[in-house]
Amino acid sequence: MTDPAIDRLWFEPASVVVIGASANPQKWGYQYARSLLKGHGPRRIYLVNPSGSPILGQPVYGNCGSLPEAPDLAVLCVPGAQIEASIDEALDRGIKRFVCITAGFAETGEVGAERQRQMVDRVRRAGARLVGPNCLGLFDADGSLECAGFWDITAGEVGLVSQSGTVLLELSARLAAMGKGLSRAISIGNQADVTAYEALESYSSSASSRVIAAYIEDFRDGRQVLSVMQALNEQGKRCILIAPADTDSVKRAASSHTGSLVASDALVDAACKDAGILRVRSISEALSAIDGILSPAPTMGRRVAVIADGGGSALLGAAACADARLEVPEFSPALRVSLAKHAHPGAGLLNPIDAVGVLCLDDMLPMIGTVLESSEVDAVLLTGALNNVKAVIDPDEAGRVAATIVDHAVRMGKGLAIASMYPDDPAMAEFRARGVTVHSGAVEAAEALALSAPMTALRPVPSLNAPCESEPHDHGYFAARGLFTRYGAVFPEAVEIADESAAIDAARQLGYPVVLKAMGLLHKSDAGGVAIGLPDEEALRLALRDMQDRLSPPSFSIEQMVPADGVELILGSVRTPRFGPTITVGAGGIYTEVLRDVVTALAPVDESYAESMLQSLKIAPLLNGYRGKPPLARKAMARLIADFSQMLLRNPRIAEAEINPVRLNAERALALDARILFGDG
Amino acid sequence: MTDPAIDRLWFEPASVVVIGASANPQKWGYQYARSLLKGHGPRRIYLVNPSGSPILGQPVYGNCGSLPEAPDLAVLCVPGAQIEASIDEALDRGIKRFVCITAGFAETGEVGAERQRQMVDRVRRAGARLVGPNCLGLFDADGSLECAGFWDITAGEVGLVSQSGTVLLELSARLAAMGKGLSRAISIGNQADVTAYEALESYSSSASSRVIAAYIEDFRDGRQVLSVMQALNEQGKRCILIAPADTDSVKRAASSHTGSLVASDALVDAACKDAGILRVRSISEALSAIDGILSPAPTMGRRVAVIADGGGSALLGAAACADARLEVPEFSPALRVSLAKHAHPGAGLLNPIDAVGVLCLDDMLPMIGTVLESSEVDAVLLTGALNNVKAVIDPDEAGRVAATIVDHAVRMGKGLAIASMYPDDPAMAEFRARGVTVHSGAVEAAEALALSAPMTALRPVPSLNAPCESEPHDHGYFAARGLFTRYGAVFPEAVEIADESAAIDAARQLGYPVVLKAMGLLHKSDAGGVAIGLPDEEALRLALRDMQDRLSPPSFSIEQMVPADGVELILGSVRTPRFGPTITVGAGGIYTEVLRDVVTALAPVDESYAESMLQSLKIAPLLNGYRGKPPLARKAMARLIADFSQMLLRNPRIAEAEINPVRLNAERALALDARILFGDG
Repeated sequence: MTDPAIDRLWFEPASVVVIGASANPQKWGYQYARSLLKGHGPRRIYLVNPSGSPILGQPVYGNCGSLPEAPDLAVLCVPGAQIEASIDEALDRGIKRFVCITAGFAETGEVGAERQRQMVDRVRRAGARLVGPNCLGLFDADGSLECAGFWDITAGEVGLVSQSGTVLLELSARLAAMGKGLSRAISIGNQADVTAYEALESYSSSASSRVIAAYIEDFRDGRQVLSVMQALNEQGKRCILIAPADTDSVKRAASSHTGSLVASDALVDAACKDAGILRVRSISEALSAIDGILSPAPTMGRRVAVIADGGGSALLGAAACADARLEVPEFSPALRVSLAKHAHPGAGLLNPIDAVGVLCLDDMLPMIGTVLESSEVDAVLLTGALNNVKAVIDPDEAGRVAATIVDHAVRMGKGLAIASMYPDDPAMAEFRARGVTVHSGAVEAAEALALSAPMTALRPVPSLNAPCESEPHDHGYFAARGLFTRYGAVFPEAVEIADESAAIDAARQLGYPVVLKAMGLLHKSDAGGVAIGLPDEEALRLALRDMQDRLSPPSFSIEQMVPADGVELILGSVRTPRFGPTITVGAGGIYTEVLRDVVTALAPVDESYAESMLQSLKIAPLLNGYRGKPPLARKAMARLIADFSQMLLRNPRIAEAEINPVRLNAERALALDARILFGDG
Repeated sequence: MTDPAIDRLWFEPASVVVIGASANPQKWGYQYARSLLKGHGPRRIYLVNPSGSPILGQPVYGNCGSLPEAPDLAVLCVPGAQIEASIDEALDRGIKRFVCITAGFAETGEVGAERQRQMVDRVRRAGARLVGPNCLGLFDADGSLECAGFWDITAGEVGLVSQSGTVLLELSARLAAMGKGLSRAISIGNQADVTAYEALESYSSSASSRVIAAYIEDFRDGRQVLSVMQALNEQGKRCILIAPADTDSVKRAASSHTGSLVASDALVDAACKDAGILRVRSISEALSAIDGILSPAPTMGRRVAVIADGGGSALLGAAACADARLEVPEFSPALRVSLAKHAHPGAGLLNPIDAVGVLCLDDMLPMIGTVLESSEVDAVLLTGALNNVKAVIDPDEAGRVAATIVDHAVRMGKGLAIASMYPDDPAMAEFRARGVTVHSGAVEAAEALALSAPMTALRPVPSLNAPCESEPHDHGYFAARGLFTRYGAVFPEAVEIADESAAIDAARQLGYPVVLKAMGLLHKSDAGGVAIGLPDEEALRLALRDMQDRLSPPSFSIEQMVPADGVELILGSVRTPRFGPTITVGAGGIYTEVLRDVVTALAPVDESYAESMLQSLKIAPLLNGYRGKPPLARKAMARLIADFSQMLLRNPRIAEAEINPVRLNAERALALDARILFGDG
């Protein structure tokens, strides 16, 4: 990672000024002054207000010009109407870092957006940077910086970046309720200047941050966001992306309000999976992941042993794991023999373990230990009615048993998740005292395991750096064929013709049967502009006259007919505003829209990645030689996908491109149609 | 509903005996005596123990024979070895109702299962009934009956039936933690005699039960279970079925341990949806549903208004609703105009509502009221950072605002769900005081709304009462064709032949091209036993000789070849041990296994239901006239499905039956292959 744009003086400023400080506790200007003054140590805190009267026992400066120095950081709390004048004054004083709490900019509509653009221009021209506007401030535990107003902060090991103030408040409050706190937090508000990726980049130097959660609606440069998160993951700081689902209601709200462009779920999910980044859709999921990651006994994998003291709890525990996409592998015979030494007769030992006949956790300790020692699982989920038989429990003994289990899990590097219906049980109190969350149910415990299991990055976030072609931007079918052909696509022979006699000549030359396509239509097939398998001159004539009557196309294409063997695939691309060019592969022809069996990835992709895309389709068995048929030319298809994706990279003005269908048989991938659309580039 | 097998004396016995009462507080025999004696009022509680010494200050009888009366109910807590003698003695004394706490029967293996069978025979021969064995007892709030041992019970409005003791404990404990309690609970244990449906049936007379949750692994008679739940729903007692998912680990544990047969998820889900029964896979989901159903402001539908005081919270709230499959409909222009009167500039009013610029719930009251008054939604979800600006909140005022919202929702019959990051806020305390749960996040609030929304029964649980045919049970292809044909299936003409010359004759008579099939194979196509489109005598000869060499079939079928138009469907049935005959319809041919685009239902189905099955397939657009093609003969297919399902009903010995493929074109549904398998019937 290069040097972050947001340097350490944002978090460890020697001096901070609150511009628009107030004496009224109900005002932001009071609350930010208060939070900055709280335990500020040697840091110099200046307050600016035109009235000049003391606030919170501190002297107040009438304007930035009268400050004795140019503070490292300025917090803007002035009313909206005064923002431009205040910024000019601060820039004149030499201030380079602004946190703009003041709202009323792009989030209120086009007028506010224009004011915001002008404000940022002003700041950037002066070589300064601005966080916000419409944000809640900054917090840094290592730098003892609390610029947080009404926002209550507990210090800890969780880093936060949030585009939304209320989401930041919810994460902070619910983490505190879980006994966890913040290492650093950056409220990026409207991202007018400093955007999510720059805020994230700053975390590479946040020593206290073990896990970082970012709430982002509008990714701006989505690839940079993912690259930074991937780099932080590699640094051992686990990153969680909280992004809302792309439902109609979410898109409606985002676009009506902030003009945010919500990226498609499928794309974000695929790109995050590739990059090894956990993407969640809710704060509850993010908290569950954080809980698991910060556990003293975090899981290193997805193979779970479920241990319960009752059959129903064992079954529901196993079902909860499966619903969370964890594995509950059947134990080996050897492990079962070891377990049986400690089990009552009739116990279920296949995994899940149903430890019948036990009355308390103590009775299960040898079995739990045996599982923790084995290499067959990565984590243990304890669930059931453990320790409900209060009459037989010695509280000290119960606590000791819990401590033994935690120590053993930590020693073996195994994950530990506990679900208990009796949170007040002394063993549960001891688990909590050791930092192991006691979940209310198996579903919640399994979710924490699943969301906190480490992910493997499948590839670096692909870069868009490549020399660009200077192409003529012709939307036509033959131009698209030409461009695609230069990037490896093979089409059946085709001749563009304008009238019937040329058509007859062309068909005779190509040999019957032929295909006739009407030109000048974006969706030829839907419009009835494609006739396939025309067996003879008569049929060709009829089809051509029919299309001429209905569609009056500028010209036609006459093409060789190819046999309908193998399968039809679709290969397409859309350039997205936030993630650039994407590539989509799926079941083609009529099945494209009906079955929606497609996978999407950030372009470009290489051949081996392209093969993995093909293998992840539901129709993959048909490609691999289904029911005794020969396997299809998967490698040729993968090469076509990879080359097509290079074309997108080198032609940034392609807004959409599609080959649908590609007919893939055992020998080759043949492109049967082509469509391209250019945009602003 | 007919008179329940489990009469009211189980829950309001005038007298109860604990057989195997004990003076040792660590023994079940002590705990059941204790719980029964607790506040038993005029009920006579007898204790039996061979020692005869007083227990809990009560006289003890040496055996049942010496009791002064035949108690209405007997609780068996004796050690396993004494169970037979104890039951005999009790039956001799005239006892008719047993709750068997004692374990060590079918759940321990085949020996235990045999003992269990003998015990039940004994009980039934005497005209008595038994709940259990291996159960935790009974509770009834209306009857003031607590037969619960170590199990802690809080009284309330929730009925429980559970096959698992630990699940019953978890439901009880977590309901109590939510401030809710039990109206009646029946621990059915091994269901040796009294099964789940009989336990459920008893709830028709449980006045206190408003919602009933049943945990069932082994349905026994699944249709009866669903019928009873459907009848209780109609009575206004909302039923929830908790059944674990049918994952490999769950099936492994269930079959290894109790020999339970876990029904397929797809079947249980489809049957529950048809019957209007909520099926969940976890205790957490069941509790969430119960929470929503028992709310003073329960939702009556799935259309939700999301109201938040911040854009991020609005988006995540809407996303949470979508994930829970709730609708967040866009508000009408008229409603938006009404809302705008109370909104700050820049507020998002399309739904979700982003109420920018508000500081507390008070500011949002007019908007909340406007939405509650509208007919565009069924429920309101409030989320965000409400009331975090503590400085400006008057606690009494906050409480009053919360009370106003609850009252208004109740008055309008609208659902209300609250998510708050500040559970200690005075408004949140007031919501809780009024019985409205304050959820920790939007996900949890949306889940409670979604799971508690009423479901509509699509049809009565189909009955299996029908006159049976006495069929010859011939597995052969031609026999299957014959049977299916009598139930409406139409096949291409076919002739069974034994040798080449007969084949040539048959083909000449049918007309080329023909299809050749080798007989005597279960999966002809997979084995290479089907050759289609044989154009002439030469091709037929070659195909026949090839099959003869490879497969040596007893005979062949020569069939008319039909054009490959329309789509291929599959129509199949499997008779399941717990739910009887099922019917499956889906995409046929190679797509059957690749795409798994199938729907399943309990057989029989009528034509209109069969059409709804077809419409729920992913490939439904292909049936309805896709891309300008004519619609296919859906009604003919629906008729075939309905008739096929009647065949299953009338032939209970059919274990499996399948027509794959059915070729459906615009004119007709043609059966192209037939397979049948008979079982024990």
